[in-house]
Amino acid sequence: MLSNIPNATIKRLALYRRCFVELDEMGVKRIQSGELSQKIGIDSATIRRDFSYLGELGRQGYGYEVRVVLEAFNNLLKTEDAQSCVLIGVGNLGRALLKYFSSDKFKKRVFRTPVNLIAGFDTDESLVGQCVGELPLYHLNDLKSYIEEHRVTYVILTVPPTVAQSVATSLEGLGIKGILNLSSTVINVSEDITVHEVDLNMELETLFFYVFQKEQAKH
Amino acid sequence: MLSNIPNATIKRLALYRRCFVELDEMGVKRIQSGELSQKIGIDSATIRRDFSYLGELGRQGYGYEVRVVLEAFNNLLKTEDAQSCVLIGVGNLGRALLKYFSSDKFKKRVFRTPVNLIAGFDTDESLVGQCVGELPLYHLNDLKSYIEEHRVTYVILTVPPTVAQSVATSLEGLGIKGILNLSSTVINVSEDITVHEVDLNMELETLFFYVFQKEQAKH
Repeated sequence: MLSNIPNATIKRLALYRRCFVELDEMGVKRIQSGELSQKIGIDSATIRRDFSYLGELGRQGYGYEVRVVLEAFNNLLKTEDAQSCVLIGVGNLGRALLKYFSSDKFKKRVFRTPVNLIAGFDTDESLVGQCVGELPLYHLNDLKSYIEEHRVTYVILTVPPTVAQSVATSLEGLGIKGILNLSSTVINVSEDITVHEVDLNMELETLFFYVFQKEQAKH
Repeated sequence: MLSNIPNATIKRLALYRRCFVELDEMGVKRIQSGELSQKIGIDSATIRRDFSYLGELGRQGYGYEVRVVLEAFNNLLKTEDAQSCVLIGVGNLGRALLKYFSSDKFKKRVFRTPVNLIAGFDTDESLVGQCVGELPLYHLNDLKSYIEEHRVTYVILTVPPTVAQSVATSLEGLGIKGILNLSSTVINVSEDITVHEVDLNMELETLFFYVFQKEQAKH
């Protein structure tokens, strides 16, 4: 059960899962923990501790069977149906994500992500009725009825920072459980909605801080 | 000195810095730690501990002076000149980032990020010679000479996953210190280069894991 897993491990689950999905797609059957550690840049002790929360997955000296690990993830997630997600704000970033999530490579995966992106929304009338990849675009005015009709529970927010809070506020009370906030500003919503923020400028700055820290440690 | 600051704090520095830049732009002079805590979703004790690494920044009951905190960041970073950065892979995501980093809002900031994005590179001949925002686009063949001439030290990688490793490998030995990897796959480079990876699908999945964990904890 995920409720018993510490946050630090939760943060790494998606990385593990992606790595094993890729190994499976490459036809790899088994991987040693040392090799896995080098591949994803996390030390073996941490990997072993994290994996202990997923069940009995490996034996000393034998490594991890790729399919066994992926099935463990499926079991972990199996009480949950696939969740529907919409993207709001079809600028360049929104368009990039819509394309990415409807790409063949992504859709053909045997072990798919538990969140399905199904549509995009914008206020730009000229976009309405178009598709990006195979995903249809709608007007923001139709968001509320769409969310109710399709039981949407996740939102990817790629709107400009100036409107992010008002769009986020309009999502209250509609049954949304999670927002992936890519709007480059903090949004405040009620506790029912979990917000996970990614700001690419902050990520660039964080990289800078790590490099700077490493350089200072040398002197 | 950043070398004395723990990694967990380093991870939060960019978030603090962005928050105070925004407060300054809004004309806010001072903020209470409780208000700050609510704004960015980090508990007050953690904020106080993190800020203790930046110097004497606040007094009990008085809060933090916005300009004082921003100057502390500038001091922390002042031994370092602004670093030049290029983006490789001008698809939708690359284009979104080039636009974002050359936007007026971004350029007019008094307290600017220490990394400057100055150009984009792609293998698509039809893009060469064009600009995105004010940033020029060049052919990937000219990357090496450009990096040497402009003393580029950071790279944002927005190429497709299939070519990410070969592009990353071609960056070895050119003086690159950091790569922000947005190519949705792990890249391996020598230890001289720090890689910070952001995979937006993994971020969506991490959000899902957090929501799922929260729901299970309720039952």
